[in-house]
Amino acid sequence: MPHQNITPESPIGIFDSGIGGLTVVKAVQAALPSEKIIYFGDTARVPYGPKSQVTIRKYALDDTLILMRYQPKMIIVACNTVSALALDVVEKACGDIPVIGVLKAGAELAVGTTRNGRIGVIGTQATVCSNAYAFAINQLDEKKKVFSQACPLFVPLAEEGFIDHPATRLIAGEYLDRITREGVDTLVLGCTHYPILKSVIQETVGNEIRIIDSAEAVAQKSAELLRASGMLNPSPAPAVPHLLVSDLPQKFSSLYQLFMGAEMPDVELVEV
Amino acid sequence: MPHQNITPESPIGIFDSGIGGLTVVKAVQAALPSEKIIYFGDTARVPYGPKSQVTIRKYALDDTLILMRYQPKMIIVACNTVSALALDVVEKACGDIPVIGVLKAGAELAVGTTRNGRIGVIGTQATVCSNAYAFAINQLDEKKKVFSQACPLFVPLAEEGFIDHPATRLIAGEYLDRITREGVDTLVLGCTHYPILKSVIQETVGNEIRIIDSAEAVAQKSAELLRASGMLNPSPAPAVPHLLVSDLPQKFSSLYQLFMGAEMPDVELVEV
Repeated sequence: MPHQNITPESPIGIFDSGIGGLTVVKAVQAALPSEKIIYFGDTARVPYGPKSQVTIRKYALDDTLILMRYQPKMIIVACNTVSALALDVVEKACGDIPVIGVLKAGAELAVGTTRNGRIGVIGTQATVCSNAYAFAINQLDEKKKVFSQACPLFVPLAEEGFIDHPATRLIAGEYLDRITREGVDTLVLGCTHYPILKSVIQETVGNEIRIIDSAEAVAQKSAELLRASGMLNPSPAPAVPHLLVSDLPQKFSSLYQLFMGAEMPDVELVEV
Repeated sequence: MPHQNITPESPIGIFDSGIGGLTVVKAVQAALPSEKIIYFGDTARVPYGPKSQVTIRKYALDDTLILMRYQPKMIIVACNTVSALALDVVEKACGDIPVIGVLKAGAELAVGTTRNGRIGVIGTQATVCSNAYAFAINQLDEKKKVFSQACPLFVPLAEEGFIDHPATRLIAGEYLDRITREGVDTLVLGCTHYPILKSVIQETVGNEIRIIDSAEAVAQKSAELLRASGMLNPSPAPAVPHLLVSDLPQKFSSLYQLFMGAEMPDVELVEV
């Protein structure tokens, strides 16, 4: 390894604009139970989605530098917005440390999954407007057709715990109607919050559409990369992820419970 | 006046965590059409509601100092969260300049309006948890009963333009059910976004409940204060408010249109 201090025992750094990336932490823990995980959630400045590209790129650099203090062996960008608009900023700040973004991982899994070549993508306004999923998918296979839809209410609905609620079903029906009418057979959840609403989304689009969870995709890809480079952690499983946040929002522990299905561990406050 | 540069021609400074305070700008324009208005919306760091008190107080100071550069004759805190948790920070930074917060203005109007002494308050999680409306109302009249309810989905529903939507009605029904069952005769909209949803809220609670729009309350109070101190602007009406934002979010111009019912003027970007 080019960094003398980086060993297989080094942690995996994961960041997101807020708590949504905890779905990625959960998926990485499931795929790689022996790895130490450092998670930074920029809860003071969430959400990134509606902000401008200049601001998002500035925040992406801040987030990366916070994780780099812990000398991670890999950085996972759990934030779709940053993956779409600022992955190059993260890569530059990381030097030789490998960087994996949810977006590309999700795009790869979607391309490998679709049978009819028609892929739906749902995400925040910024992710959808950036057209980054369509770009990533068409870089892998230019014949694939991509149909995108912004679903801005899904994040607040998930955080409010309106998981199995008639209002969520109404809103999901409205958001997903056009995409299903386009005949997609694969639907990418292009926002880390959306796995929380996976069952209502599946119910709305019907069981014939395969849902791609980008959190699971990025976890799979990370496992492959660490295995291939001999950097899997040989130690026994660490108990809990190390959590850093830029603010301690109200309801944080109930949100942690909602996302992780476990009690919240100690959390460290970081200034941004 | 204690400040040599402050005259009746000086502007009124108004700030909010984002664009919600535009409902206050609109109400102030209606009440005081001759006044120059400088509005700062901290769109890079919106929303304040779910953040911690330490962070909210830091942001409140930043916002005030940005407006103070324009030597305003008065500061209106359009943000309920700041009015609830950090009004003293604003007052300290303003020195002798009068500061009016939406919260106290709304509380005063509610106390003057209720007949049966039972007042409902709806707002963000932080505003409601701070108990600041109940405190302000009971400082005016300790016999008034206050019933509060956080409505976290109202802001995203308003911003998504789900003004007259069955999902909004379902969610409003759920949020407002307990408050109406408490027999309130007055309901304070304790968040600057909520006037956008006023008709669905009125429909949900019924016409016998009087809705207090804090934006209108603060505009009335500002007019009285300027009149009493001889600081009303004698000049002809200026055309448009001067808009400052910390970020230029997507859909900003359509949101401006939604809040102000007018085309968006030029906007100045300020770093925070």
